Amino acid sequence: MSQNVDTIVTCSAPVNIAVLKYWGKRDEKLILPVNSSLSASLDQKDLRTVTSVSISQKYKDDRFWLNEKEEDIESSKRLQNCLNEIRRRVPDNSPLKNLKVHVASVNNFPTGAGLASSASGYACFVFTLAKAYGLSENYVGEFSSMSRLGSGSACRSMYGGFVRWEVGTKDDGSDSVASQVAPETHWPEMDILVLVVNDKKKDVSSTSGMQTSVQTSDLLKYRAQHVVPERLKQFEKAILERDFQTFAQLTMKDSNQFHAVCLDTYPPIFYMNDTSRNIVQVLTRYNEASGKLKAAYTFDAGPNAVIYTLKEHTNEILDLVHHYFPFENQEHKGSLPENIKKAVGSNIFKSEIRRIIHSAPGPGPQVLGSNEALIDSNGEPIKRS
Amino acid sequence: MSQNVDTIVTCSAPVNIAVLKYWGKRDEKLILPVNSSLSASLDQKDLRTVTSVSISQKYKDDRFWLNEKEEDIESSKRLQNCLNEIRRRVPDNSPLKNLKVHVASVNNFPTGAGLASSASGYACFVFTLAKAYGLSENYVGEFSSMSRLGSGSACRSMYGGFVRWEVGTKDDGSDSVASQVAPETHWPEMDILVLVVNDKKKDVSSTSGMQTSVQTSDLLKYRAQHVVPERLKQFEKAILERDFQTFAQLTMKDSNQFHAVCLDTYPPIFYMNDTSRNIVQVLTRYNEASGKLKAAYTFDAGPNAVIYTLKEHTNEILDLVHHYFPFENQEHKGSLPENIKKAVGSNIFKSEIRRIIHSAPGPGPQVLGSNEALIDSNGEPIKRS
Repeated sequence: MSQNVDTIVTCSAPVNIAVLKYWGKRDEKLILPVNSSLSASLDQKDLRTVTSVSISQKYKDDRFWLNEKEEDIESSKRLQNCLNEIRRRVPDNSPLKNLKVHVASVNNFPTGAGLASSASGYACFVFTLAKAYGLSENYVGEFSSMSRLGSGSACRSMYGGFVRWEVGTKDDGSDSVASQVAPETHWPEMDILVLVVNDKKKDVSSTSGMQTSVQTSDLLKYRAQHVVPERLKQFEKAILERDFQTFAQLTMKDSNQFHAVCLDTYPPIFYMNDTSRNIVQVLTRYNEASGKLKAAYTFDAGPNAVIYTLKEHTNEILDLVHHYFPFENQEHKGSLPENIKKAVGSNIFKSEIRRIIHSAPGPGPQVLGSNEALIDSNGEPIKRS
Repeated sequence: MSQNVDTIVTCSAPVNIAVLKYWGKRDEKLILPVNSSLSASLDQKDLRTVTSVSISQKYKDDRFWLNEKEEDIESSKRLQNCLNEIRRRVPDNSPLKNLKVHVASVNNFPTGAGLASSASGYACFVFTLAKAYGLSENYVGEFSSMSRLGSGSACRSMYGGFVRWEVGTKDDGSDSVASQVAPETHWPEMDILVLVVNDKKKDVSSTSGMQTSVQTSDLLKYRAQHVVPERLKQFEKAILERDFQTFAQLTMKDSNQFHAVCLDTYPPIFYMNDTSRNIVQVLTRYNEASGKLKAAYTFDAGPNAVIYTLKEHTNEILDLVHHYFPFENQEHKGSLPENIKKAVGSNIFKSEIRRIIHSAPGPGPQVLGSNEALIDSNGEPIKRS
């Protein structure tokens, strides 16, 4: 399929939340990980990146607008890496071959949600460029490997549902690609809650954090080589069998181990704070009181909690969270059963959480209609805010 | 040496603070560890246990007073284990052989210092009983192995200065004993500051915590088998060479790794809180700004920090701590150099620390004079508070 000059292509891509964590690169330049990882892509209703790409002979330079503000695309190594990978795949006889691009990208995340946008951002950047240039994959995961050059975890946003990023063994990284373990429709009972924590601290960036971990943590290497390979198999089996008990326990253990490796780093990296600890303790007691695992927490490179649960438990967990972590303007009204209140305890953590985003596993990148375009026919960004 | 009936013997024993942490038992009954550990015993001026033992044919029962309150010695398995080990070493022809004991023990720790008393307590219990029964060691570390049956880390309080607790390989634990790496006089420049943190949370007891860690943490086993043996050698070399840079880095890394293992436990154990994190970050920046390591933090099974430093830096570190963690009634007045303030930052953590105990490495258990006895000639406890 060839594209006309002046075509504007607009796509969206999801955020993903890892349950088996990626932490540490074995190759900084190619962004190759020290271990495989696994995530779910989130429903794009709440959280997504939308990107428009326009290719035209009218354009003198490549240009890029992020959230309606122009960025210097030339000086961004990561954007350049992705763009170069796309361009070297465009056939020499394509009329688009030597043309410049205008790209506009918007993250529709709630302000200050503390959620990383690099994964959905680079996935959407690569996916939209590939569509605009009319490229198709030469092998499964090829697009994912291109977005990996922007941000490691971006490769997992190239698919919907449950997605594995294979560690790979080749030096050129060609086998370190993402693939789908199961689509979101495989486990429709799954729900995902993001608890946004009130926190003023600036976290250590994950790029520099994982670099220090690789250099200094004795435990990271052991985790990568001896814990993760077995855990990945257990995760995939649990997903395919829709075995929430196993999935939940693995999720919590892997989040804990990731933060353990951060703490074993020198100097140590702390992403979880006292609120994160309180969330862990409330959910641990809640699960114990329930006689089974109803909620599985996971924490990324910051204090926010993400809870994986089943839809049948979502309301009770919302009751639980609103009861123990009340905040202003909370919309949810509910009452927590007395037996749970008794088991979890009487400590209330007021205003420690700022908001809750209710999501679920969702599909991968989508091609959108022209009504959602972020670039007009003159190649200028369209303001939608 | 034989003892008269009705002799009252009074001894003291120090608190110890591990720099290479003990976490996990391979034998719950014999209290055998999964890895060797290393500590310094603290000067007894501030922190010590004092115990009096009286043995008399007048006594009908074994009795025990802890901090002037009688405890049921019969129902305490740990006290019984220590007492039995002592008694089976008393020669059959000793006039004391079948007599009952009265024991009184007092910890002179500042109220609510949040410092564990079990190490100095069991060391003092065994040491004083041994002296009262006129026992001497059949092999080096024999007394330490008896106090180990009360509380693992108690064995390290049986010596002064820098003390190693050897993991041992024998099933009966006879080679899992403490011994002195160097006396406190070997490194007279060393100073120790205990920062007592304001915290209301009840911590997970270390006994149950380490049990769960052994059962669930993948990283604990790796630490015990592959990290600690090499680290112990490095620690001993650093102590013998008075190499504070190496000692300090190992101390901080080992504290971090111990807490990493706690976090890798399922459900996870959190001993450090946000104040502990803040202390780590202030000291990390302070060391960076100093161009060398002046302060080494270590945290045990709670949020309190212990800082190992050299006497030449103590005043500056007291300035630093009082500047960043001001609290009511602080006695220290000083001013922190501007370049350090600039490097460490402008965040002040008010009232997060409650007090500072200034100590240093000190000697092992001591035999005290009768003026310090805690039991009178009638076998009754003497109130000294």
